Amino acid sequence: MSEIKKVLFVGAGNVATHLAEVLDAASLQIVGVFSRKKESAEILAQAYKAIFGDFDEIQDLQADLIILSVPDHAIQDVLSKIPTNQALLVHTSGSLDMQILQNKQQRIGVFYPLQTFSKSKKVDFLQIPLMVEARETEDLEALEKIAQKISEKVFRITSAQRKKIHIAAVFSSNFTNHLFHIAEELLTKENIPFEIIQPLIAETAEKIKNLRPFLAQTGPAAREDHETIEKHLKDLEDSPEYHEIYKLLSHHIIQSRKQ
Amino acid sequence: MSEIKKVLFVGAGNVATHLAEVLDAASLQIVGVFSRKKESAEILAQAYKAIFGDFDEIQDLQADLIILSVPDHAIQDVLSKIPTNQALLVHTSGSLDMQILQNKQQRIGVFYPLQTFSKSKKVDFLQIPLMVEARETEDLEALEKIAQKISEKVFRITSAQRKKIHIAAVFSSNFTNHLFHIAEELLTKENIPFEIIQPLIAETAEKIKNLRPFLAQTGPAAREDHETIEKHLKDLEDSPEYHEIYKLLSHHIIQSRKQ
Repeated sequence: MSEIKKVLFVGAGNVATHLAEVLDAASLQIVGVFSRKKESAEILAQAYKAIFGDFDEIQDLQADLIILSVPDHAIQDVLSKIPTNQALLVHTSGSLDMQILQNKQQRIGVFYPLQTFSKSKKVDFLQIPLMVEARETEDLEALEKIAQKISEKVFRITSAQRKKIHIAAVFSSNFTNHLFHIAEELLTKENIPFEIIQPLIAETAEKIKNLRPFLAQTGPAAREDHETIEKHLKDLEDSPEYHEIYKLLSHHIIQSRKQ
Repeated sequence: MSEIKKVLFVGAGNVATHLAEVLDAASLQIVGVFSRKKESAEILAQAYKAIFGDFDEIQDLQADLIILSVPDHAIQDVLSKIPTNQALLVHTSGSLDMQILQNKQQRIGVFYPLQTFSKSKKVDFLQIPLMVEARETEDLEALEKIAQKISEKVFRITSAQRKKIHIAAVFSSNFTNHLFHIAEELLTKENIPFEIIQPLIAETAEKIKNLRPFLAQTGPAAREDHETIEKHLKDLEDSPEYHEIYKLLSHHIIQSRKQ
C-alpha cells in the first residue's frame, strides 16, 4: 500500500484516545471516530474535527487505516457493523489473533501498544512498546512506518508471540498490582500507611532495568530462610487466601533456585 | 539519654555500609566496625578512620549507639560476643522482635530502613522509610532525632507492626520480583526481549503512587474475562507451576472484587 495518511477509529476508549492524540501530533489526519456509543465517538471526533455518525458512512471517508479499538468481547459485533472498504483494518488487542479479522474482505493487521492506559493520566508514548503485524508485507512496512513516528520501541511481533507477551504482562502487571493490593490490606489492618512500602515497590521495579529478575531476587524464600517463612505463614493463618498465595510463591521461588 | 554522637557498627554488610555513609555525612562519628569477618570490618572501618578489631574492645570506644546489622540467623551468636556496655543497642532487622536483644543488660531498640539494598547501587536515603523503636521513651526520641537527619520518612513502629510490614514487603517486593522472573522466562522461550514489558512494569509501580492498588487493577481477571483466562491457562499447560500461580492469583483477584 502507499503511505498511511488518513486514520479512522472504531471505538473511543482509553487506547483510541491516546493513539488519536499522538497520531494527530505526528501529522496524520484523524478522519473519523465511530463507536457503538455515539456520545463517546462525538467527544473524541470533535477534538480532531473528525466525522462521527453511522457506521455506513465509513466507506465515504476513504481512510487508509482503520484502528479497531474496542473490548475483545465486543469485536465480533462491531466487525459486523463495519462495511467492507479499501482501508487496512487493524485491531489493538493483546490477546486476539490477527485472524479474527479475516472474514472482512480487506487487508488486515494488528497495532498493539503494550501499556496500562487510563484516560486521565498522561503517558510518554515514545517509550511505549508498539507491536505491529500485518498479513501483507507492504502493509506491515506501512504500519511500522507510522508506528515509528509515535514510538521509539516498535517491534514486529506475530500473533503467537503477542499471546505470550500478553500472558507475561498479566504476570508482571496485573498480578503484581494484586500483590500491592494485598500488601496494602495487611498494612491498613494495622493502621500503617501504605506509603511506607511505596519506595520499596519503586526500587523493585527500577532494579530490573539493569539486572535480570532472577539475580535481583531477595527475601526469605530466596535465601531459604525457612524459619522466617514459617513465622510469616503462622501470622497469615487468619487470611487463608494470603496464606495460600504466600506458600505457593515461596515454594516456587525456592524451587526455581534449585534448577 | 543525651544526644547520640558516636556510632559503632556490628556487621559490615549492605545495610551497615549504606547507614555508615549517611550517618557520617550527617556529622555523626563512626567510631568502630566489628564483624565476625575481620576483613569486611576493616574495609568499612578504614573509610571512616574507625577502629576494627576484637569484640572485647567495644567497651573502650564509648559509643552512644551500637547498630547491629547482621543476618537474622547470626544475631544470637553475635550478641553473645558483644560485651555489655553503656550504649543503646539496636538491630536493623525487619522481622525480629526488639525483645531478641533483651538479655543484654543495656538499653535496646530497633533502627530499620525498609529498602532492598545492594552494595554497588546508590540509593537516595532521604526517601527511604526508616522505622524506629526503643524500650525507653528517651531512647526513642534520640533515635528519632538521628533518623530524621538521614531520612524524610521516619516512623515510630512497634515490633508487631514491623512484622506485618515485613510480610507486606515480601508480597510487594520479593513476590512481585518473582513474577517478573516468570514473565522474563515466558518471553525468552519465544525469543522476545524482556525490555518489551519493562515500561509496563515501571508504569504499574508508578500508578499506585496516586491510586489505590484495588482501583488500579486491570486485566482479564479484574474484568472477569473468563474466555481470556481459559485461553491463557491452556497456553500454560506445559508449565504446571506457572499454570498454578496464574489460576490462584486470577481466582483471588475475581474474589476480591466481589467483597
